[in-house]
Amino acid sequence: MNIRDYQSVAKRREAVAKELSVPLEHIGSFTLDEVVASTKHCENMIGIAQVPMGLAGPLTLFTSEGTRVTHYVPLATTEAALVASVSRGCKAITASGGATADSHRVGATRGPVFKVRNVAENKKLHDYLEHNMPRLKQVAEKTSGHLTLTGVSSEGVGRYRYVRFVYDTQDAMGLNMVTIATDAASKLIEEETGAECVALSGNFCVDKKPSWKNFVENRGIKVWAEVVLTESVLRDVLKTDAKRVYETWLAKCMLGSAMSGSMGFNAQYANIIAALFIATGQDPAHTVEGSVGITTAEVINGADLYVSIYLPDLMVGTIGGGTGLATQKEALGILGVTGGTGGEHATRFAEIIGATVLAGEISLLSSLEQGTLARAHSKLARGKII
Amino acid sequence: MNIRDYQSVAKRREAVAKELSVPLEHIGSFTLDEVVASTKHCENMIGIAQVPMGLAGPLTLFTSEGTRVTHYVPLATTEAALVASVSRGCKAITASGGATADSHRVGATRGPVFKVRNVAENKKLHDYLEHNMPRLKQVAEKTSGHLTLTGVSSEGVGRYRYVRFVYDTQDAMGLNMVTIATDAASKLIEEETGAECVALSGNFCVDKKPSWKNFVENRGIKVWAEVVLTESVLRDVLKTDAKRVYETWLAKCMLGSAMSGSMGFNAQYANIIAALFIATGQDPAHTVEGSVGITTAEVINGADLYVSIYLPDLMVGTIGGGTGLATQKEALGILGVTGGTGGEHATRFAEIIGATVLAGEISLLSSLEQGTLARAHSKLARGKII
Amino acid sequence: MNIRDYQSVAKRREAVAKELSVPLEHIGSFTLDEVVASTKHCENMIGIAQVPMGLAGPLTLFTSEGTRVTHYVPLATTEAALVASVSRGCKAITASGGATADSHRVGATRGPVFKVRNVAENKKLHDYLEHNMPRLKQVAEKTSGHLTLTGVSSEGVGRYRYVRFVYDTQDAMGLNMVTIATDAASKLIEEETGAECVALSGNFCVDKKPSWKNFVENRGIKVWAEVVLTESVLRDVLKTDAKRVYETWLAKCMLGSAMSGSMGFNAQYANIIAALFIATGQDPAHTVEGSVGITTAEVINGADLYVSIYLPDLMVGTIGGGTGLATQKEALGILGVTGGTGGEHATRFAEIIGATVLAGEISLLSSLEQGTLARAHSKLARGKII
Amino acid sequence: MNIRDYQSVAKRREAVAKELSVPLEHIGSFTLDEVVASTKHCENMIGIAQVPMGLAGPLTLFTSEGTRVTHYVPLATTEAALVASVSRGCKAITASGGATADSHRVGATRGPVFKVRNVAENKKLHDYLEHNMPRLKQVAEKTSGHLTLTGVSSEGVGRYRYVRFVYDTQDAMGLNMVTIATDAASKLIEEETGAECVALSGNFCVDKKPSWKNFVENRGIKVWAEVVLTESVLRDVLKTDAKRVYETWLAKCMLGSAMSGSMGFNAQYANIIAALFIATGQDPAHTVEGSVGITTAEVINGADLYVSIYLPDLMVGTIGGGTGLATQKEALGILGVTGGTGGEHATRFAEIIGATVLAGEISLLSSLEQGTLARAHSKLARGKII
Repeated sequence: MNIRDYQSVAKRREAVAKELSVPLEHIGSFTLDEVVASTKHCENMIGIAQVPMGLAGPLTLFTSEGTRVTHYVPLATTEAALVASVSRGCKAITASGGATADSHRVGATRGPVFKVRNVAENKKLHDYLEHNMPRLKQVAEKTSGHLTLTGVSSEGVGRYRYVRFVYDTQDAMGLNMVTIATDAASKLIEEETGAECVALSGNFCVDKKPSWKNFVENRGIKVWAEVVLTESVLRDVLKTDAKRVYETWLAKCMLGSAMSGSMGFNAQYANIIAALFIATGQDPAHTVEGSVGITTAEVINGADLYVSIYLPDLMVGTIGGGTGLATQKEALGILGVTGGTGGEHATRFAEIIGATVLAGEISLLSSLEQGTLARAHSKLARGKII
Repeated sequence: MNIRDYQSVAKRREAVAKELSVPLEHIGSFTLDEVVASTKHCENMIGIAQVPMGLAGPLTLFTSEGTRVTHYVPLATTEAALVASVSRGCKAITASGGATADSHRVGATRGPVFKVRNVAENKKLHDYLEHNMPRLKQVAEKTSGHLTLTGVSSEGVGRYRYVRFVYDTQDAMGLNMVTIATDAASKLIEEETGAECVALSGNFCVDKKPSWKNFVENRGIKVWAEVVLTESVLRDVLKTDAKRVYETWLAKCMLGSAMSGSMGFNAQYANIIAALFIATGQDPAHTVEGSVGITTAEVINGADLYVSIYLPDLMVGTIGGGTGLATQKEALGILGVTGGTGGEHATRFAEIIGATVLAGEISLLSSLEQGTLARAHSKLARGKII
Repeated sequence: MNIRDYQSVAKRREAVAKELSVPLEHIGSFTLDEVVASTKHCENMIGIAQVPMGLAGPLTLFTSEGTRVTHYVPLATTEAALVASVSRGCKAITASGGATADSHRVGATRGPVFKVRNVAENKKLHDYLEHNMPRLKQVAEKTSGHLTLTGVSSEGVGRYRYVRFVYDTQDAMGLNMVTIATDAASKLIEEETGAECVALSGNFCVDKKPSWKNFVENRGIKVWAEVVLTESVLRDVLKTDAKRVYETWLAKCMLGSAMSGSMGFNAQYANIIAALFIATGQDPAHTVEGSVGITTAEVINGADLYVSIYLPDLMVGTIGGGTGLATQKEALGILGVTGGTGGEHATRFAEIIGATVLAGEISLLSSLEQGTLARAHSKLARGKII
Repeated sequence: MNIRDYQSVAKRREAVAKELSVPLEHIGSFTLDEVVASTKHCENMIGIAQVPMGLAGPLTLFTSEGTRVTHYVPLATTEAALVASVSRGCKAITASGGATADSHRVGATRGPVFKVRNVAENKKLHDYLEHNMPRLKQVAEKTSGHLTLTGVSSEGVGRYRYVRFVYDTQDAMGLNMVTIATDAASKLIEEETGAECVALSGNFCVDKKPSWKNFVENRGIKVWAEVVLTESVLRDVLKTDAKRVYETWLAKCMLGSAMSGSMGFNAQYANIIAALFIATGQDPAHTVEGSVGITTAEVINGADLYVSIYLPDLMVGTIGGGTGLATQKEALGILGVTGGTGGEHATRFAEIIGATVLAGEISLLSSLEQGTLARAHSKLARGKII
C-alpha cells in the first residue's frame, strides 16, 4: 500500500485501517473543512486528533492600552487539573482587581548562515550588511504586503556569518512569510557579495529551540503581566499566605532553576502555553521557546504578594497558520481576537496569554506551598474537580 | 455567568456562545467520551480542538531488540509541509535499508526541595538520603503497583537540599504517579529528619523546562537513531549529496547553535515531537524538554552520509494521561503500541519517535542545503505537495 | 634570533631585551629556583611576573571537622580594593562568630571521547565500561601511587561515546596524574573493544570551561560556607541592614543572572578565586570553572542575615603543580596547608577558599547596597583604604 | 596582632611570619615600587607572588590594519608544557605564513539594576532611557576624559529594569572608569524618574561570570584569528594531518562541548588567556569571560587545514590597572603595546592575544590527535621540552 495513492482523507484512512486492522473511526470524525485542512495544513491527512478544550476563567486584566477586559481562556489539554489550576489562579487575579499586562512587538526572525573565504571577507560581509539595509528592506518587503523588515544584525565566526533578519508581520506569527522574504534578501546578498548562503535557517533565528539568543534579544512579542494578590485573596482563594508562596517561588523558580541549569525560571509556563497554542491554532512547536521566561514574586505591604511573569519569546498570531481552522478560529473568537487588524489582535492575544500564564504560576506556586500538588493529581486523575 | 454552574459540556458551551455571541459549533463536534474527557482530562470542558492528523511514512527501522518494523507515523499538525517533509525523510531512510534505533530507560523524575537550618544539617539530610534508600523505596512504591523507585540523588545549596527521585513507571509517562510517590517519600523524610519540604517540585525534576540537568543526566527514555544514506538515495530521493548536507549540518546544528546559545543542537526536533505528542496523547508541554538533543552527521565511504539523532529526555507513555482518549488511542494503534506491557510498548514507541525525528532532520537539512526551504513553504502554504 | 638557542634564563632574557630594545630588569629579578622553574613549570623562561600579594583577614571559620581556625588569607592581585573588600567581609564574618564550611571530595576528572562504528557498538562500549570497572581501576591506578579511580560513567551520541573518569588524587589537584592514568585506561579500552580514542580530553572532563556538566555533577572539591551576620555587625561593620543586602542579592545574583544567562549566580567569586589561585600556585586557568556557583541570602530572626556560598567545581591542591614554587609554598604556609597528608590539606584549603569567597560576597553585596561601589573604586584607585 | 597596624610591607610581613612561624622570604623579595603597589594595587600588601614567565613564539600575524608583525608572547604560568605547547602552535602558524587577525571594539559595560513600582512604570523607565541618551552621555562622560558612552540598552522583568551601559575606554580595560561614569548616570536616572538603583552592578554587565549575554552581545574587544596550515606544516611541525586534527576538533570542541553543556566550544583558551593576563597585568578574574569562545576547523584544498578562533568577550587594556606595574609593563613592552594611544594599543594587543590563542588550539588539537597529551604531561612534568 502506498498512502500517497489515495486522494481523499476517507479513502486514505480506510486503507490504513484495513491494512493495519486498527479502528480509526474517531480520527475520522471531524467537521474541519477537509480540502483546506488536507491541502494547506496537513499532508497525507487521515482525520484529526480530538483534544479536549476547557475554559479557564473568568480572568480580568488591564491591557497595555489600559482597557479592562474579562475573558474565558480556551485551553486544549488532556491533562487533569490544568484547567482547574489555571482557573483558580484566574479567580485569585480577578478577585484582586485584575492583572496588568504589557507587551513589546519584537518581531519574527530568520537567521541564515553565509560562508565566505576568510576573516577579511567576513568583515566585508559585515560591512555590506551595515550599509545596505535599505536595499535588503526593499527586496524583502517586495515578497509580501504584510511584512516590514525592521532590523538586520550579524555575528561572524571563522568563515561563517550568521545574520538575523527581524520583521514586523502584523497579526500573523509570520514564519513562512519571513522565510520567503529572507530567501529573497539572501539571494541579493549572495549576488552582490559572493558569499554563499549555506542554510536559510542557521539556528540563529532561533526557531523552536530554547536559546539564550532569543532569551536575551527576544523574539515575536514579549509580554509582562503582574498582579498584587491581597492578603484576603491569598487566604480565602488560595488557602495560603504571601510569605509562604514567596518562599516557594524563591526555592523553586530561582534557586532550583539555578541548580538544574534550567532556562525556565518559572513554575509551569509550558503547561499553559502548550494548551493555549493548541486551542488557538498556534504552531505547538513554538511552545519550546514560548515557555521560557522568568516569574518574580515579592511580599509587599506586609502581607500582600506581588507576582509577575515575563515571556521574552512569544511567536503567536491571530491570522494565518492554524488560526483559520474551524475550532481554532472559534477559540480565538472566545477571546475576541480573530483575524488581523494591523497587529493589534496579536498584541492583545499575547497579553491575554501573559495574564493566563500568570494565573498558572499563582495557582501552582500556591498548591506547591500547600503540599497539595500530589493530592490534586491524586484526586483529579480519578475524576474530581478542585 | 459562572461557567462552573453548568454541568454538561454542551450547556457550558452554549452559555458561553450565547454570552459572547460567538459560534462554537465545531468545538462542540466531537466523539470523545464526554464523561471521561470532562472529568479526567479537562475541567470546564466545552468541546474539543480538532487538529489535522496526517501520516508520515512508510518508515522502516530496526528496534533495539533487532526487530525490523515498518510504520506509518501519525502527526497532528496545522503547519503545511511538516508531514510532507517527514515523509521525504522516511522515504530516504527506508530506501537506505532502514534506521536503527536504541534506547535506555532512564526513568520519570520528581525533584522536591527541602529546607533545613544550616549547612551541617544539610549534610545530615544528605547522609540520611544515602542510607535510607530501602525505606524510601518501600514508602514510595506502596503508592502504586506500577512504579519502582530506582534512584535518589541530591544536591545542597545553603539551607536547601534538592532531591531527585527516579522511577521506572513501566509503560506510563508516569508523572502523576511519581508525584504521589514522591509526596509519600517526602513526608517520611520530613518526619524523620525535621527537614521541611518547601515544594514537591523544586525545578530539580526538571519538568517541562529546557534544562542542562536533564540534558546531562537524562529523563524518561533516552533514544538514539541512525541511518547511512547512500549516495544514490541522497541524489535521487533528497536531490543533494553527502558533502553538502554535512556542511549544512555543521554550519547550522553545531556552529549556529553554539553562536546562539541554543540547547538544541539539531534542525527541527520540536516540530516532530510536538506533532507526535499531540497525535498520541502525550503531554504536549513535554515537547519543551523532549525536543532538546543532538544531531550528528558524517560523510563515510566517500559519498554516503551517516546521520544520527539523540534524544536525552523523552517523557512518553502508551498508557495513562491522554493516551486513553479515542483518537489518541487510535493513533497509538497505528503504531501498534496501545496500552501497557511492562515497559516494552513505551520503549518501542520512543524508538519510533527517534526514527521519525531522524527523518525530520534528514529532510530539513537536505531542503536547507538545496535552498528549497522558502520554496517549500511558499508552495505548500498554497496547497501543493512536494 | 631563536629563543630556544639560549640555555639559561638570563641569557634568553638578555637576548630578547637586546633584540627588542626593551628593559626586562624587573622580570629578571626573582628568587625562585631557576632550574626547577624553567624545567618543570615554564619553558623558555625569561624571569617572573611579580604580582602584589596582600592578606585579607583575620577570618574565623569552623571547618567540616568542627575545628575553629582563624587565618590571614593571601591574595595576589593588581586590582585596588579587592583585599580591602575581602577584609571587610572577613571582619563581618569574624565579628559574627565565624563562618561554617563544609566540603565534599568529588574528584579530578578526565573525559576522553571514543569513536565506534554505530549505535549498536556504542551500546556495547557502554556495557563494557559498566562491567570492567575493576580492570580499568587496576590499569589506571598502576600509573601512580597517589590516585584512586572512583568512578567511570559515559554518554553516547551517534558514533561517539564520552567517558568520564573520576579520581581521588589526595592533596594534589591532580590533572596531570589523571591524564596519564586515563591514557592507560583508554589504551585498554581501545585494545579490548576496538573503539578508537579520538581525544584523551573530549571536553567532557570538563577542563577549564564553564560547563553545566561540572555544575550539575561537580568536579574537584565542592564547598559550602555560611554565616549568620547579626544586626549589629550589619550596621556597625557593613553600614547596612539585612533587608537591603537581601534585596541586592535577589536583584543581582538571582534575577540579574537569570536575565543575562549567567552561569554564575553570585557577586564576585572570580575575583577571590583568581587572587587565591595565583597566590597559592593553583592553575589560574581553573578560575574559569572554580568561580561558578550560587550565593544564597535570607533574612532571619527579623534583622539578621544568613548568607551562604556554594562552589561546585574547585580544582585545587596543596602539593604538585605550582604549589611547590617558593612564594606559592610560603602562601600556603600562611594557611597552614603546605604539602600533602592524604587529602586533608587540600580539603582544608578548599574550605578556607569557601569562607574567603563568602567574605567577598558579603562585602560586595553590602557595598552595592550602599551605592559605594563606584566610590570605593574611585578612592582606592587613588590610594585610600576603606 | 592586627595586620592593619603595620604601615610598611616589610613590617607587616615580618609580623605575620613571626606570629605564624612561617618563612616569607621569597614573598618579600621584589622590585616592584612598594608605595605604588601597596596603595594603588593591593591593600595589606606583604610582598609578591613570583610567577614564572616564559616566551612563546616567534609568532607571525597580520593585524586588522594589514601589518605583518612577529612577536614573542610572554606567558606567566606554573604549568609545565604550556609555553612549549603554544610555541609549537606558533611555529606551525609562522611556518604557514602567519595568522590573520581581526577585531571589533565592542566596549566596556556596566549593568545596574533599577527598581520601580510596577510594569507600567517599568515601561516609562524604558522610554526615558530611549529618549535621554544625550543627557546620560553628558553626565557619564563628565567623569573622565578617556571614556565615551556609546550605547544604553535595557530589559525589564517585573519591577526591575536592567540597564547596560556600553563605553569606549580607549586603551584601558576601563572597568573602574565605567563604574564611576555609570554611577553618575544612575544618579541622574534616579533623580529624574524616581526609580531606585538597587545595585550599580546587577549581573547584567556581565562582569567576570560566564554569560550568554556577553557571548551573544559581546564585551570589551572581540577578536578573530585564522590560519591555513599547509599539509607539510601539519606533517613536519605538528606530526599529524588535516583530517585527523579536524576529526579531533569536531569530537571535542563541537560535540563534546554540546554534550557537556559547555560555554566554551574550544580546546584550551583559558590556559593561554590566564597566562597572558597574569604576565601583562590584566585583571586575571576576567579570564572567566575572556576564555569563552568558538574554534572552527575545516579541511581545505584536500589536505590543508583552516583553523580559526573567536573571542567574543575580551576585557583587556594596555594602560591602567595592573599594566603599570614593573614586570607587567615590561611584558607589554615585549609586545610593543605599552601605554595608550587612543585605543590602538589595546586593539593590537587583543589581536596578538587572538593569534596566541589560535596557536594554543592548533597545538593542543594536534597533540590530542596524536595521543601525546598524556605523554607530554608525563615528560614535561619531569623536565623535558617537546
